[in-house]
Amino acid sequence: MTGTGAGIDDDRRAVVLDGSQLTLEAVRLVAAEGYRVEIDEAAAQRVERGYELLGELANQGIPIYGLNRGVGLNKDQEVSAAEQEAFNRNLIYSHAAGVGPYASDIQARAVLLVRLNTMLVGSSGVQLAVPLLYKDMLNAGISPLIPLSGSVGAADIALLSHIGLAVLGEGEVSFRGERIAAAQALADAGLAPVKLMRKDALAIVSSNALSVGTGALALGELKRLLHSADAVLAFSLEAIEGTVSPLDEAVHRLLPFRGAAESAANVRQYLAGGTLTAATGSCKLQDPLSFRSACHVHGAARDAIAYAESLLHIHMNGAEDNPCLVLDEERLVASSSFDITSWTLAMEMVGIAMSHVSKVTSHRSLRLGSPVFTGLNRFLSPAAGTIAFGTMQKTIASLDAEIRGLSQPVSADYLPLAGDMEDHANQTPLVVRKIGDITERLYYLLGMEAMHAAQAIDLRGTHDALGQGTALIYQSIRNVIPMLKADRPLSRDIEEAARRVRAGFAL
Amino acid sequence: MTGTGAGIDDDRRAVVLDGSQLTLEAVRLVAAEGYRVEIDEAAAQRVERGYELLGELANQGIPIYGLNRGVGLNKDQEVSAAEQEAFNRNLIYSHAAGVGPYASDIQARAVLLVRLNTMLVGSSGVQLAVPLLYKDMLNAGISPLIPLSGSVGAADIALLSHIGLAVLGEGEVSFRGERIAAAQALADAGLAPVKLMRKDALAIVSSNALSVGTGALALGELKRLLHSADAVLAFSLEAIEGTVSPLDEAVHRLLPFRGAAESAANVRQYLAGGTLTAATGSCKLQDPLSFRSACHVHGAARDAIAYAESLLHIHMNGAEDNPCLVLDEERLVASSSFDITSWTLAMEMVGIAMSHVSKVTSHRSLRLGSPVFTGLNRFLSPAAGTIAFGTMQKTIASLDAEIRGLSQPVSADYLPLAGDMEDHANQTPLVVRKIGDITERLYYLLGMEAMHAAQAIDLRGTHDALGQGTALIYQSIRNVIPMLKADRPLSRDIEEAARRVRAGFAL
Amino acid sequence: MTGTGAGIDDDRRAVVLDGSQLTLEAVRLVAAEGYRVEIDEAAAQRVERGYELLGELANQGIPIYGLNRGVGLNKDQEVSAAEQEAFNRNLIYSHAAGVGPYASDIQARAVLLVRLNTMLVGSSGVQLAVPLLYKDMLNAGISPLIPLSGSVGAADIALLSHIGLAVLGEGEVSFRGERIAAAQALADAGLAPVKLMRKDALAIVSSNALSVGTGALALGELKRLLHSADAVLAFSLEAIEGTVSPLDEAVHRLLPFRGAAESAANVRQYLAGGTLTAATGSCKLQDPLSFRSACHVHGAARDAIAYAESLLHIHMNGAEDNPCLVLDEERLVASSSFDITSWTLAMEMVGIAMSHVSKVTSHRSLRLGSPVFTGLNRFLSPAAGTIAFGTMQKTIASLDAEIRGLSQPVSADYLPLAGDMEDHANQTPLVVRKIGDITERLYYLLGMEAMHAAQAIDLRGTHDALGQGTALIYQSIRNVIPMLKADRPLSRDIEEAARRVRAGFAL
Amino acid sequence: MTGTGAGIDDDRRAVVLDGSQLTLEAVRLVAAEGYRVEIDEAAAQRVERGYELLGELANQGIPIYGLNRGVGLNKDQEVSAAEQEAFNRNLIYSHAAGVGPYASDIQARAVLLVRLNTMLVGSSGVQLAVPLLYKDMLNAGISPLIPLSGSVGAADIALLSHIGLAVLGEGEVSFRGERIAAAQALADAGLAPVKLMRKDALAIVSSNALSVGTGALALGELKRLLHSADAVLAFSLEAIEGTVSPLDEAVHRLLPFRGAAESAANVRQYLAGGTLTAATGSCKLQDPLSFRSACHVHGAARDAIAYAESLLHIHMNGAEDNPCLVLDEERLVASSSFDITSWTLAMEMVGIAMSHVSKVTSHRSLRLGSPVFTGLNRFLSPAAGTIAFGTMQKTIASLDAEIRGLSQPVSADYLPLAGDMEDHANQTPLVVRKIGDITERLYYLLGMEAMHAAQAIDLRGTHDALGQGTALIYQSIRNVIPMLKADRPLSRDIEEAARRVRAGFAL
Repeated sequence: MTGTGAGIDDDRRAVVLDGSQLTLEAVRLVAAEGYRVEIDEAAAQRVERGYELLGELANQGIPIYGLNRGVGLNKDQEVSAAEQEAFNRNLIYSHAAGVGPYASDIQARAVLLVRLNTMLVGSSGVQLAVPLLYKDMLNAGISPLIPLSGSVGAADIALLSHIGLAVLGEGEVSFRGERIAAAQALADAGLAPVKLMRKDALAIVSSNALSVGTGALALGELKRLLHSADAVLAFSLEAIEGTVSPLDEAVHRLLPFRGAAESAANVRQYLAGGTLTAATGSCKLQDPLSFRSACHVHGAARDAIAYAESLLHIHMNGAEDNPCLVLDEERLVASSSFDITSWTLAMEMVGIAMSHVSKVTSHRSLRLGSPVFTGLNRFLSPAAGTIAFGTMQKTIASLDAEIRGLSQPVSADYLPLAGDMEDHANQTPLVVRKIGDITERLYYLLGMEAMHAAQAIDLRGTHDALGQGTALIYQSIRNVIPMLKADRPLSRDIEEAARRVRAGFAL
Repeated sequence: MTGTGAGIDDDRRAVVLDGSQLTLEAVRLVAAEGYRVEIDEAAAQRVERGYELLGELANQGIPIYGLNRGVGLNKDQEVSAAEQEAFNRNLIYSHAAGVGPYASDIQARAVLLVRLNTMLVGSSGVQLAVPLLYKDMLNAGISPLIPLSGSVGAADIALLSHIGLAVLGEGEVSFRGERIAAAQALADAGLAPVKLMRKDALAIVSSNALSVGTGALALGELKRLLHSADAVLAFSLEAIEGTVSPLDEAVHRLLPFRGAAESAANVRQYLAGGTLTAATGSCKLQDPLSFRSACHVHGAARDAIAYAESLLHIHMNGAEDNPCLVLDEERLVASSSFDITSWTLAMEMVGIAMSHVSKVTSHRSLRLGSPVFTGLNRFLSPAAGTIAFGTMQKTIASLDAEIRGLSQPVSADYLPLAGDMEDHANQTPLVVRKIGDITERLYYLLGMEAMHAAQAIDLRGTHDALGQGTALIYQSIRNVIPMLKADRPLSRDIEEAARRVRAGFAL
Repeated sequence: MTGTGAGIDDDRRAVVLDGSQLTLEAVRLVAAEGYRVEIDEAAAQRVERGYELLGELANQGIPIYGLNRGVGLNKDQEVSAAEQEAFNRNLIYSHAAGVGPYASDIQARAVLLVRLNTMLVGSSGVQLAVPLLYKDMLNAGISPLIPLSGSVGAADIALLSHIGLAVLGEGEVSFRGERIAAAQALADAGLAPVKLMRKDALAIVSSNALSVGTGALALGELKRLLHSADAVLAFSLEAIEGTVSPLDEAVHRLLPFRGAAESAANVRQYLAGGTLTAATGSCKLQDPLSFRSACHVHGAARDAIAYAESLLHIHMNGAEDNPCLVLDEERLVASSSFDITSWTLAMEMVGIAMSHVSKVTSHRSLRLGSPVFTGLNRFLSPAAGTIAFGTMQKTIASLDAEIRGLSQPVSADYLPLAGDMEDHANQTPLVVRKIGDITERLYYLLGMEAMHAAQAIDLRGTHDALGQGTALIYQSIRNVIPMLKADRPLSRDIEEAARRVRAGFAL
Repeated sequence: MTGTGAGIDDDRRAVVLDGSQLTLEAVRLVAAEGYRVEIDEAAAQRVERGYELLGELANQGIPIYGLNRGVGLNKDQEVSAAEQEAFNRNLIYSHAAGVGPYASDIQARAVLLVRLNTMLVGSSGVQLAVPLLYKDMLNAGISPLIPLSGSVGAADIALLSHIGLAVLGEGEVSFRGERIAAAQALADAGLAPVKLMRKDALAIVSSNALSVGTGALALGELKRLLHSADAVLAFSLEAIEGTVSPLDEAVHRLLPFRGAAESAANVRQYLAGGTLTAATGSCKLQDPLSFRSACHVHGAARDAIAYAESLLHIHMNGAEDNPCLVLDEERLVASSSFDITSWTLAMEMVGIAMSHVSKVTSHRSLRLGSPVFTGLNRFLSPAAGTIAFGTMQKTIASLDAEIRGLSQPVSADYLPLAGDMEDHANQTPLVVRKIGDITERLYYLLGMEAMHAAQAIDLRGTHDALGQGTALIYQSIRNVIPMLKADRPLSRDIEEAARRVRAGFAL
């Protein structure tokens, strides 16, 4: 098996899940690249043992939340064995209360995958048929329609129940590009619904998989975006003929913030081979901070993301169920593992971090439009009377303001629910969704910065002096956006540039 | 001519514009209801005189921003008479830098209409052909594709330029349900592009019409939503068998906040004829504040909206151009009339007001789910073991959190642009857009409240005791959503209820 | 009687209260200037009749909240006539739960005054001895120690109870500059505590007088600050030799936003008599927007304040009690008049407005430090090598950020209290307190702007060319801060300049 | 040498600094406990070598920022050797532009200490006399008066210059409890001012020591507060007779978030020996989430603080100077090490984390006041008719709202300064200050929670059944606050309770 570890087999385009090693990258490969999913044998046995154990405990007459007792405020109501199937169905039905917008297919796949993996930890007590169907739906390309609004982030119960509908062969799914009845899709794929028993329904809904799955995708995308941000920064340094001394390895060794050091190394790589890094005795002592401090800002975002990722990794491979089966001790413990404040806060921080990234790319574009800093015409106009990139500054500033707004924390804004029994929550799905919204806007901002840099380089006529990496960016931009020689509508150019940033500038 | 005044002729489904009497209602009639637009004769003459005067002033060699001088930071660059047409075209081109999402057709019509009306004030110096083409496009159903991101709200220049493209017969428009080339649409409708001269291009872009037009629609919609909110409140008062004394006319006379008094009167009207207002000697001394204080909260929103509307009315009928022609004094004055801080702040306040409306509807739903306040089963379940509306509380709380986030002000988050020359802005398009986003979520929240109230009334069996207005709401809801007798997926019900609230409960 | 109306008698330095005409100015005169308070005879009779009527209603056995029934969640508990005195005392005791910081003497006086006036409306049913003691304490200079934290703004019960302690002769007060026992102070002033009966205790605490009183002072101070802001703007226009055309009366006539027009008129007055308004044919077409648009920004704040003041005026002269006596109908009505969302929202808007004022004064200072806009040395240094006002920019930017933070709305951040019965609130005391904090910082910012302007004028040597008003500002600043001829520590200068702005620049 | 490592010698009450091992705890010991400071010999030699090297580089004619070239925008201006002393003095003077409030003595000591330690890294090029004087001032108890407003957090230059004044023997300091002239204090302590040369002045101001020093104190205090929060949580679990299963070690092993596990272990320790942990077969399946999930919330704050501390540790022991001497390579490198986005973001996250801690303590108090959850009287009243802790809920909710407001991020709210050269900043001093403000309010909130728990335990009469740790808390509270048997003013009790929480409940 070849791959990047963590159960990933690139040759077979497959990911083997065992409840302990799921990574952001594996989530992306399955959700977005269509890798197949397989279940580790020992993990499957663990699940079976869990289901069995749960039955034994119930037979001993122990009150079990969501099995022989109701859920939420109904936890005081008994559920008889005869009522189990109806109880499970009702639980799925009554929890299906989300509203749009709906998860994309890629997002829905990530959600399925994450819950599948945490079921394999063995603390759910779910019957094996459920994770098997999750796997089969993933491999068959069946994606339940999952709404994104309706969870306060203390388990995504109102949203994950929509997966439960599909498991029951009800509701709708996305299949082969169409929205069709779940029953039909399962039949077409040769799959059968599952009869939910014991606490299966609770196992399906009592998870933060919506938050985790969409969060894993969002973080992964941000990591790629930050790589592009470094690339565009390098490009802009070429455009402004900036000083490279803040990238010096020594200063990052003497004040070793990891993210900043990584970012600086990345920028140096893009610049390598060009005149900028070769230059000796630049007369400039300083560039604007949006250039000079940029590696610290991009690096801060890298640090924030690394922190968030480390916590998300724990969650994706941990026992998130309540109640939680402790297999090795043959116990069932009422837990509060659905409370994900720790990594929700990390995600809030990531949002704020990106608002700083937004600020520095915006300011770099503005500085590139200023003769004071470039020695070129204002707004990088090719000739007098041309407005060139003057108006685009409004587009930049308006998107930056949108990002500032989206970076405001919301996690502490919740209402006590269920007769005040549920008096803490985190709004995690919303926190995650805002990160996605920020990301979309950052593509535009970095794209416009790249437009500025390319234009400045053309005005200087220095594109032959670029580094190997920055030359590549220049080519990527100029392939789709010609130099601005006379005023023209810019919206299309901006769209193209954003697309290029999204695709990344692989070295 | 019959109508509600303000140039509105309902018989002919037409609005006559003269630059002095455009209202929110007229904007809605033209934008959403397809009323025709006509131009008052005296207003047209004023425009012609303005264009003429501008020519005279230019001939005297006076430097005129955007005519014989460049715009923005280029204000120091001369523009010769020979360059005028190219200058005008370039100005439109270079300013077309907005990015999506795009205005709906209704929004685009409102934008056209507002700018058309402010041109009629006579301070633009625009050639009459421009407002005439705006009128013709409106009447022919041609809507320019206008992006919504790209303006910082100190004139929406980067967005309104996209109208300018259509005026030049370039770019794309929405016409008869399709997105086609502007040139084609104009030709199909028997219209011709305009050759822009003097400061025509500046007149097209130097306006806040995007903010004003979309803002007028948003405010109008909110006014209708608040009427529905009062109706739903009345419905919930029936459901909780609430006390009506806070609606008493006397207390509103003794503390005369206008909005609260209006809201109370409105609720009384919905309750009229029912047992609630007839009741004497209720044993309850108090309801929860989300019921008891609701008229003050809805009323506060009414007050905020009335304040915003009064300011918007000034703008829609005022001289917003810079420079500004003072016709009666035959002068051209450099102004800062594009700065719309005053009503932007009012719109920020409206957003915060709606976050309070969100809070009280959310809390009313939660209280209706609590036996303590209703004497009914928890979560209004029809029978033991049913979860009923328990999970929907998550949907409510998550939407309320989204609204809390959207209500955060953003107007002061701007970057100094154009070499720091443009160091104030208001982000008005974003402020307005957020109000629309809040409104969408409020439909859901009020819909879910109505679902609760209907269910409570059914559980009590008191639907015969309702007021005339609340009986009507009951019917409206029950026409599309049957009483919940067993758990079922609720997302569809929520969608239906939201639709009913959006449609309103006309008495 | 001479005065500005509204019961103010400037000759006798007295204000006559009748529950219907209290103004911001009267609040200031009594609270800060020591004007005596008198009670209108008819108003006193109204109070007496109210107390009497309340007794009659109670004798009829009607359940009355806070008289023969408990308060809050205890509203279902009966209170016998024999228990009345103890009940009243306990109510005051149990509500005294506020925490520091404490109101200043001036603030405490405003609070006493406001509640005194709303008691005179006649809807409280309080015994006349209570408002009489409020009056006597005001006239004797006895100020109860009132904490500022502890009210969620749905009546300031936990704070106003601390006045109740003083009325009972308990707790501490501020008297003749010292903090002493209330009993001692009353005795020293020849006053006696009041035995609270019927719903007297409720009348004392069930009011928003803390919010209203401190709010009235804050708004009044802001109005004066805005006058100073206009003055400093005029001064800076002199310093930058700015264009005055945006002040032109005609453009404000053609787009009649009231605040902007007032601000422009004010600035014109400060400039009158100087060369700036006399100038013909300035070559500059435009100044930075922080100068050019400033009247619209200051004006927006004026509009916001006018809106807030109009609402506050209603409250200060209205029936805020719950339950509310309707004297003319001899009824007691349970009301929700303690809900002050409408004017709380206005105050939130005022905070946001001031964040815009902060932005423009900050930017004006930055622009005055830039050779691009002044033609003077960078940072207005008198000679090469001097850093002059370079570092002060950090002080400016840090205070502006503090203000941005303080302008964030908080009114919707509340917790449902009292078993969810109290599920709406407004955090009004906090909203008001933040306005005060913003105001303190604005004095510094405007002071630093004035320092910049004075320095620029000295560098130009144009102080003889100033207007009559701006010459006066110049003198006021230069009286305490000499021109900067060499670098010196600036903190003291900044303090002095802030003091000058606070004092105002009366024409 | 005994101590906790990191150069701390508890026997001698001294800390040895070497630029590589300063910890939060050492900062506290020196700043708050008066530990002496010593300088490691090798570190002192490093400083001397740095100063020497700087001289050599300058002699080679290399342009050096802040030595032979001006600073900030003046970086293009040459400074001759003859001008050096005046240049250094002017630099200190001109940067002294901060405004109040002022740092406490403890804070000022932390700031001196941190900068002293980073100077010892050897990258400052400062003459040894400067760090020696810092050490001597610390040991003599001389604390410069340092304002807290005036830095945007990209080096605290406008604030640290006030230390520079003291080094020059100018300005004022705090000494032996008085505010006296620096010259006098130095003389009294037998110390002499330093003549600043080369880039000494820049070394003094170009540091983030104000942010780092106050931040280190704030984080240390929060760590202690979180310990108290766990203790109070344990106390409340006793009061509500809560379930302890969410504290189970196994569930934290299966989902290993470090902070949550630590918090749970801490709570278990407080409960040990009591009946709660001994209980078998509790009939309750669940407590409210504010109890059940509390360890996850407290733990999230622990995680956030640990992340912030790890980054702060890097900064306190790293080369923060710009330009930065790379001693081993004999180079001077222009760096951007003053950009502290990474740990500023961590501090923003800590603020948000504490707003969640605020929410759960607030909700626990509210739940303890509710018969539904305790089976005791409402508001924990000892008898009918007593309001008990009913009003205190307002105090709780108002402080929680203040904290929510203080937790809003501000780091991205900055203005581009110095001719747009300084277009990134972090507002770190403000971010840190807000954490302190939150902490103050949390003492009150946790104190009120402890009051509730003690009262509930007394009402149950279960104080003999407490764990060893919770018994200790009970005693600590009851030592100063008697059980509430009849209504009494509560403000004093709240103050006492807050004091107890601040002191901590050491096991």
